[in-house]
Amino acid sequence: MPHSNGQPRIVIVGAGFAGLACAKELGGAPVRVTIVDRHNYHLFVPLLYQVATAALSPADIARPIRRILGRYRNIEVVLGDVVAVDTAARQVRTADGRTIDYDRLVIATGSEYSYFAHPEWARFAHGPRTLPDARQIRARLLTAFERAEISSDPAEQDALMTIVIIGGGPTGVEMAGSVAELTRHALARDFRRIDPRRARIILIEAGPRILPAFPVSLSDYALATVTRLGVTVMTGQPVDAVDAHGVTVGDKRIVAGTIVWGAGINASPAGQLLGVELDRAGRVPVAPDLSVVGVPEVYALGDMALVPAADGTPLPALAQVAKQQGQHLGRALVANLRDGKAMPAFHFHNRGNTAIIGRNAAVFDFGWMQIKGRIAWVLWAIIHVALLVGFDNRLRVTLQWAWRYVTYQVGARLILS
Amino acid sequence: MPHSNGQPRIVIVGAGFAGLACAKELGGAPVRVTIVDRHNYHLFVPLLYQVATAALSPADIARPIRRILGRYRNIEVVLGDVVAVDTAARQVRTADGRTIDYDRLVIATGSEYSYFAHPEWARFAHGPRTLPDARQIRARLLTAFERAEISSDPAEQDALMTIVIIGGGPTGVEMAGSVAELTRHALARDFRRIDPRRARIILIEAGPRILPAFPVSLSDYALATVTRLGVTVMTGQPVDAVDAHGVTVGDKRIVAGTIVWGAGINASPAGQLLGVELDRAGRVPVAPDLSVVGVPEVYALGDMALVPAADGTPLPALAQVAKQQGQHLGRALVANLRDGKAMPAFHFHNRGNTAIIGRNAAVFDFGWMQIKGRIAWVLWAIIHVALLVGFDNRLRVTLQWAWRYVTYQVGARLILS
Repeated sequence: MPHSNGQPRIVIVGAGFAGLACAKELGGAPVRVTIVDRHNYHLFVPLLYQVATAALSPADIARPIRRILGRYRNIEVVLGDVVAVDTAARQVRTADGRTIDYDRLVIATGSEYSYFAHPEWARFAHGPRTLPDARQIRARLLTAFERAEISSDPAEQDALMTIVIIGGGPTGVEMAGSVAELTRHALARDFRRIDPRRARIILIEAGPRILPAFPVSLSDYALATVTRLGVTVMTGQPVDAVDAHGVTVGDKRIVAGTIVWGAGINASPAGQLLGVELDRAGRVPVAPDLSVVGVPEVYALGDMALVPAADGTPLPALAQVAKQQGQHLGRALVANLRDGKAMPAFHFHNRGNTAIIGRNAAVFDFGWMQIKGRIAWVLWAIIHVALLVGFDNRLRVTLQWAWRYVTYQVGARLILS
Repeated sequence: MPHSNGQPRIVIVGAGFAGLACAKELGGAPVRVTIVDRHNYHLFVPLLYQVATAALSPADIARPIRRILGRYRNIEVVLGDVVAVDTAARQVRTADGRTIDYDRLVIATGSEYSYFAHPEWARFAHGPRTLPDARQIRARLLTAFERAEISSDPAEQDALMTIVIIGGGPTGVEMAGSVAELTRHALARDFRRIDPRRARIILIEAGPRILPAFPVSLSDYALATVTRLGVTVMTGQPVDAVDAHGVTVGDKRIVAGTIVWGAGINASPAGQLLGVELDRAGRVPVAPDLSVVGVPEVYALGDMALVPAADGTPLPALAQVAKQQGQHLGRALVANLRDGKAMPAFHFHNRGNTAIIGRNAAVFDFGWMQIKGRIAWVLWAIIHVALLVGFDNRLRVTLQWAWRYVTYQVGARLILS
């Protein structure tokens, strides 16, 4: 269904790793592309925990979508929130009432934290998934220490200096390590009545081990490392309740000044707009070419797509999966729409799964090889800087990490509510 | 009235240029110091307009007060909002109900934008005076261009791409120059339906010339420079009304997407807590030694103090005035409390008044000499970097300015509401 100027129109919803990678492949091709996002920036979510722990600023890991795609004259960027998809009329509608026609639609709106059957917990335990969330965690963490400093009740001081992190996956481990470094070093000398080094950091995992998606040897290393950093790890203990003042784990009550959530994700609710049946995590089932089952001109990518891996289990919600899918689909659409080629099947190539624990300590699982410790940490830093969009962002992050490595200080300890 | 450990207790309210300079002089002296601020950071207000125009991030120009003063073991930092001063009991009270005793009290809470008799205008025209304000201006400015891009009504597009800046002092001129550079360069190529270079930037000054505190030759230079940058300057035209959609100047109605306020300041309302008569701008009258007239153990510094210059006019609300007063008072208090010396009178030494207009264009007035143009601009940049607190902040700002100078790009174009 070509438009007035004869070129097919592709609408991409979401400018995360998947949507952006797809758009870049379509840049300069004989298609008209509209990319819609509710924010004006692409966010490098893997480093968001560093914004939450005052090591980086929002602008270090976010970049205007327009600026990234500005050079491609066939791509239009729209700030908007897609609230409806009419697959019959091939139109999406935004919250401000605009409709955008498409010939092909790409949905890549990512995922959000899942609080299981307890959405009310979201108010008390933010997860580092969006910039406002990260800023909220940072403000709560720093405010708790400020309040402890002016408290004259030792029990209240201890409670305020307790940080509970729920979920022992990469986000939980990264947060625990980063909070430990913040309290043990950056905050250590700045208070008079409290000793931030005495802060209790508790990492709670429902399953039997932290980093459950990694081999046992790397889980053991991560456990030993965070424990050495002063983190108390509780495994095999699901959280039963979360409220404004703390968490309940079985018959244990933990009063805490800061609660961070990193326990599980659901696909973004945008999948519900397609009128197809979703899996339990809200993911959209897709065919091997990433088209939505039953709606062939619509594609789903990244965290919100249910794509089986070679072994039949769904591909995990990782940046590398999203990016590879976006690149694959972008190239396939160009070949299909320009040259009439068939849409090929997507195959995931595992580039290695990684998590950082702290200074000189990270883990990598390449499947055929595992590495840990300082070499893994250096590799982690190099890869994350390289994956940032924009030379200036890379330079800023590198400098701030170098500064932090040498001085143990972080530069963004601001309470901005 | 020495306390239990025999050392006099000094309470400083406000960690701006004056309060911080005073605290540093008292660091290590045989006194106990408590510095109270409602924020956890010291803010370098002169560069706040660059946060408002997406050139810098909040963390580049703000630094935790604890971190700045952490090395002085006799200084305690309290996050709090002082809501009452009992000069008889020598106590201040914070919003959360705590009382802090003092032997000497230093009030240095600065100033805020004055909307004359129209406090309701504050909702529609933010001034770059606090970090939330600056972020608000940035979000409104960038959102207006996003909305113009998706509008199909040319009149609405023109209105959204109109930026009105009220007040032709240094803040207004700096904002106008910075917005011009943002729209003419950084945003220029990133939109498809609008041309940001066509944005109308209108600088409105009620008096006869912009930069009225500077010599006429520098005002003329500033007028010529901003005009060359594409700014429309309206002088001799007071604003009659400000609302959500624009401003009214005489019988002229200007519909605008962004309205910025920089027209006048009042002293912070904390002066009202002292129970003394204030001047029309809310300033506290002080004796030559900066003690509040009638309350000798209380001192007022910076923007909120009414200090006559040699010619009898009040000293202006400038960082250099505040900083000199803070240093003077800190040294005087040490000499007085430790050595029993009398409190000397404060004398202001003018280090030069400056305003930046844009790339390669600034003005300096040293009284005995005026400079303008590229040399003034380089001097402006060197001085502002030098005055930032912290080597890492200096490095970050320098790098971002260098990057911006070479590429015409800014790094913080994020809409964070």
